[in-house]
Amino acid sequence: MVVTEPISLQPSERIDDLLTHDLKIIQSDEVFSFSMDAVLLARFSSIPKQGRILDLCTGNGVVPMLLSTRTKASIEGIEIQPRLYDMARRSVELNGLDERIRIVQGDLREYYKEVGYEVYDAITVNPPYMKMQTGDHKLNDHQAMARHEIGCTLEEVVVACKRLIRTGGKVTMVHRPSRLGEIITIMREHRLEPKRIRFVHPRANLEANMVLIEAMRDGKPDLRLLPPLIVYNENNEYCDELMQIYYGPKEGLDE
Amino acid sequence: MVVTEPISLQPSERIDDLLTHDLKIIQSDEVFSFSMDAVLLARFSSIPKQGRILDLCTGNGVVPMLLSTRTKASIEGIEIQPRLYDMARRSVELNGLDERIRIVQGDLREYYKEVGYEVYDAITVNPPYMKMQTGDHKLNDHQAMARHEIGCTLEEVVVACKRLIRTGGKVTMVHRPSRLGEIITIMREHRLEPKRIRFVHPRANLEANMVLIEAMRDGKPDLRLLPPLIVYNENNEYCDELMQIYYGPKEGLDE
Repeated sequence: MVVTEPISLQPSERIDDLLTHDLKIIQSDEVFSFSMDAVLLARFSSIPKQGRILDLCTGNGVVPMLLSTRTKASIEGIEIQPRLYDMARRSVELNGLDERIRIVQGDLREYYKEVGYEVYDAITVNPPYMKMQTGDHKLNDHQAMARHEIGCTLEEVVVACKRLIRTGGKVTMVHRPSRLGEIITIMREHRLEPKRIRFVHPRANLEANMVLIEAMRDGKPDLRLLPPLIVYNENNEYCDELMQIYYGPKEGLDE
Repeated sequence: MVVTEPISLQPSERIDDLLTHDLKIIQSDEVFSFSMDAVLLARFSSIPKQGRILDLCTGNGVVPMLLSTRTKASIEGIEIQPRLYDMARRSVELNGLDERIRIVQGDLREYYKEVGYEVYDAITVNPPYMKMQTGDHKLNDHQAMARHEIGCTLEEVVVACKRLIRTGGKVTMVHRPSRLGEIITIMREHRLEPKRIRFVHPRANLEANMVLIEAMRDGKPDLRLLPPLIVYNENNEYCDELMQIYYGPKEGLDE
């Protein structure tokens, strides 16, 4: 249910339509706007009908809001940047989802100290993709922090997931295929066994530029490699599956 | 050049056409026949124009013979089973390739003692796919040994590759996607960094049933995830790329 009271917007902010369930989201091209990665993550992830779900690196809260359309579970999102945390919190309020989604401002590396070990049934994460390179320490704006491993490394994200997820619980990540070797190694080092992987290709004849990977805490090695998700068809239109993901109602991504 | 002298065939053996470069191959449904996996491996692998190439688990020698059409390098194939070694050796002779391909009967785990460390520029391997399960020790025929990890485990294959490949050399493997987590972890533990992966899907909407993976000895982590290879189109015919791989002159798989 959408609350009709006015929500305060900061300069540069706008309210966008999430195109499903009448959800709205506060965005800003100067600060943070969600991308297709987050939408695909929210659809690909295996989430329980009830229980507790956590979204790490939640940004402006797009993943928790999309997940709320698929489950009755309680959903938390944690974001380290106060500015993004504030956008996410207001978006949740804007959609009247305060009772189902809790946005927290904090460091994912320390969050287990607050909530305890192995308390979540599912965790989703769209982490920064890029390794820090020489010279990148100059980057310090909101977008750089969301894209580069400034606040936390891939291994720190995985360690946080390991601490927070229960045995048998699912951790779902979206990332770049170029990092897949590291992702799989680090996950398995920390008892997160990859169980389902799906690659996203811009077109059928192009290399993948995104990977969706679901791992189970203490799972047995037995990986399913799902059909490729192709974004554009020969006519430069979204393929049918993408149209369904964005505009629904069919659930195609997690079959 | 095909030698026209008669080659002796054992009972159950036949001579098949490899469908390219007039190559023939000795096969037997009771002992060993090559499958699409080997053909795709031979086309996917990055091989040098010159130097030394080794094919592990060479079976009836299909991979060395297909590789010989793409390079002037010297090619060796090693096979542990005397019966398959003998088929491979006779197939090489049948095609007049004795001077370019050497088939060896032996244990890949011990081969470094014979040839030395880090002597090959490229290695290809189509290993047994299936882990040994309780009860599988009863299996002891030729086909079971080619399919199950009776003679060597995945880790033993990777260790053999690590010992035999030079720094910067490429190791290319075909395997089942269900084992991908283990494959990547074990390769990276042994300094083989995955650089190129391609998944093979029977159809565009089905899960992958084969993975081609190329790793570089001491390479840096930076993986390319190639376009999916789809085997059959909507009309139950081989897709164009498969037709080209089997019959074509075009090189489509390693682009």
